Amino acid sequence: MARIILLPGRWLIVKTNPELTWTDTTLRVRYAETDQMGVVYYANFLVWFEIGRTDFCRQHGFAYRDMEEQDGLYIMVAESRCRYKAPARYDDDILVRTCLKEVRRRVLVFDYEVYRQASDELLAEGETVHVITDRDGHPRALPEKYRDLFAAGPKHPGLGTRG
Amino acid sequence: MARIILLPGRWLIVKTNPELTWTDTTLRVRYAETDQMGVVYYANFLVWFEIGRTDFCRQHGFAYRDMEEQDGLYIMVAESRCRYKAPARYDDDILVRTCLKEVRRRVLVFDYEVYRQASDELLAEGETVHVITDRDGHPRALPEKYRDLFAAGPKHPGLGTRG
Amino acid sequence: MARIILLPGRWLIVKTNPELTWTDTTLRVRYAETDQMGVVYYANFLVWFEIGRTDFCRQHGFAYRDMEEQDGLYIMVAESRCRYKAPARYDDDILVRTCLKEVRRRVLVFDYEVYRQASDELLAEGETVHVITDRDGHPRALPEKYRDLFAAGPKHPGLGTRG
Amino acid sequence: MARIILLPGRWLIVKTNPELTWTDTTLRVRYAETDQMGVVYYANFLVWFEIGRTDFCRQHGFAYRDMEEQDGLYIMVAESRCRYKAPARYDDDILVRTCLKEVRRRVLVFDYEVYRQASDELLAEGETVHVITDRDGHPRALPEKYRDLFAAGPKHPGLGTRG
Repeated sequence: MARIILLPGRWLIVKTNPELTWTDTTLRVRYAETDQMGVVYYANFLVWFEIGRTDFCRQHGFAYRDMEEQDGLYIMVAESRCRYKAPARYDDDILVRTCLKEVRRRVLVFDYEVYRQASDELLAEGETVHVITDRDGHPRALPEKYRDLFAAGPKHPGLGTRG
Repeated sequence: MARIILLPGRWLIVKTNPELTWTDTTLRVRYAETDQMGVVYYANFLVWFEIGRTDFCRQHGFAYRDMEEQDGLYIMVAESRCRYKAPARYDDDILVRTCLKEVRRRVLVFDYEVYRQASDELLAEGETVHVITDRDGHPRALPEKYRDLFAAGPKHPGLGTRG
Repeated sequence: MARIILLPGRWLIVKTNPELTWTDTTLRVRYAETDQMGVVYYANFLVWFEIGRTDFCRQHGFAYRDMEEQDGLYIMVAESRCRYKAPARYDDDILVRTCLKEVRRRVLVFDYEVYRQASDELLAEGETVHVITDRDGHPRALPEKYRDLFAAGPKHPGLGTRG
Repeated sequence: MARIILLPGRWLIVKTNPELTWTDTTLRVRYAETDQMGVVYYANFLVWFEIGRTDFCRQHGFAYRDMEEQDGLYIMVAESRCRYKAPARYDDDILVRTCLKEVRRRVLVFDYEVYRQASDELLAEGETVHVITDRDGHPRALPEKYRDLFAAGPKHPGLGTRG
C-alpha cells in the first residue's frame, strides 16, 4: 500500500520506493505501431504510458473517464520523458508497469517500465508529470476521494490488465 | 465553378463531373506514417483525406474549425472507402486532390485522389460520405452560407496548399 | 468450419454465410484514439480491423509475423471500406469480429463488425481486400499450408482475444 | 554556422548556443492529432520533432531517407523529453524549430521548440538523443560527410519548410 503524508505546507508526498505500488497492463504490438525500421515508432511508447495510466486509475477503483465527465477534471500532461533500451516489435506481448511516484496538491508524477513479456527484457522506462485542471485549463487540487483511492492501493488488480 | 441545383424535394445536387472543382493539397510523408513493410500504413490515407477535406473548406472560404466552434455543426463520417494502387513511401511529396461530389440537405460526399508528385503516379483514390450533425449527433441541414460557399467554388486556391 | 472449394479455374471459394467462421478480438479504446469530437477518429477503425486480421490468423494457427519473416509473404491491402453506425468512446470495451469472406489464389477478402460490448451495439462494419505479394510487391499465390489452416477453422479461439 | 571541434578524445562538440543553427519547419494541426480534450494529443509532439529532424537534415543538404537506403545507417532514438507549455489546437499553424545541440562520434542530440505561429506562443520544447546504428542495431560512427554537412550549416533553408 502506498502511504500518503500530509506535510504542513501544500504538499502530499507518497513515500519513496519500498511502498510504491506498480500496476501491470498487457498489450500486444499493433502493425500500425511499427515504422519502416521494423520496430515500434518512438512516440507510441507515450501512448502505452497513457494506457498504463488509465489502467492504474481503474485498478485503484475509478475510471479516468468519469473523472473527466463527472468532476470536470483533467489530468493535463506537463512533461514526458522516455529512455529507449531495446526495440519492441510487431506482435510482441508487452507489459507496461505503472506507478504513481509523487502526489502533490495539483501535480501527479507517474513512472513507467515497458517489458517484452517473452524475454522479460526492459524495453523502455519513462516518466510523465501532470497537472490537475478544470475544463478551461485552470489548475485545481486533486479531490480528496481520488487521493484516498490512490493511497488505498490497487483494489482491483485484475480489472485493468488489457491494453 | 460547381453548380448546385435546388430540387423541389429535399435534395441539393452538385451537377456531375464536368463542373466538379478539385482542390489541391500537398504534404510530405512522415516517418511515423510508415510501417514495417516500408510503406505508408493503410489507415493513414484516411488521415490524408481529412487533410484534403479541411483544405477544401478553407479554399472555399471557411475554416471547418469555425463551423464546429461558431455553428456547433459537425461533419460526421458515415462511410469511407479507399482503393490502394501503389505504395507511398517516407519523405515522398504527396498531392491530395479533393472534390465535393455530392451536396444533399444533410449529406456531403467527397472524392479523393492521392498522387506521388515526383512521378505523377496515382497511389490511391477514395470516397467519404458525411452527415451534418449538431453537438449531440442529431442530423442537421447544411446552413445556406456553406452551401453558397461550396457553390461559389474555390476562391482562395493558394491558401490551403500545405498539409 | 469454413469450406474451401477448388473450382476448375484459378479460384478457391469459401462458401457463403452459413459456414463462415468469425473470430472475436477485444480491445479497450485508448485516449490517443479519440479526437476533439469526443469520439474515436474514423481512421482508427482500420487499425482495429488490422488487429482483428492478426488475431484471425493467430486463432487459425499461425502468426502473420512468421508469414512475413519465414515465407517473405505480405498481405498487402488493395481496398478498404467502413460504414460508421455509432461512435466509439474512450475506455469503451470493444469487440472486433473478423471473418475471411473470400479466399482466392492471390486474394483475401476479410469482413469486420465492431461492437460496443456494454450495449452490444454495432458501431461499424467494414471490409478489406488484400493481395498476397513477395517482398518486392509482386503477386504470389497463397501457400497451401495457409489455405489449409484457414479451411480448418479456428483451432485456438482463446489465443488471440486481446487487442 | 555551427562549429564542430575535434577534441583529443572521441568527442566532436558543436560549440554552445551562440553558434547553434536552428532550422524552421511549418505544419498545420490535423484533426487526427487532437484528442477528446480538444487539444493535440501529447505523443504527437514527438511526431513533430521527427518532422523537424527530417527537415533539419534536408536543409543541411541530405535526405535522411538516403542515409538509410544508401549508407544503411539509422538514427535510432535513445531518449526523448518534452515539456508542454500550452495546448496546440486543430488547424493551428505550427512552427517547429530544430537544432543539433551536440554531435559526438556516435551520438546526436537535437533540441526542439514548438510555436503557435499566430500568437508566437511557445507550446512545447524538447530534446531527443540518438545513436547511429547499422541495420542490425550495432552502433556506428557518423560518417564524415554528414558531420561536414552538419558543420557547414543549413544551405537550403527554403527546401524543407513544409510538414
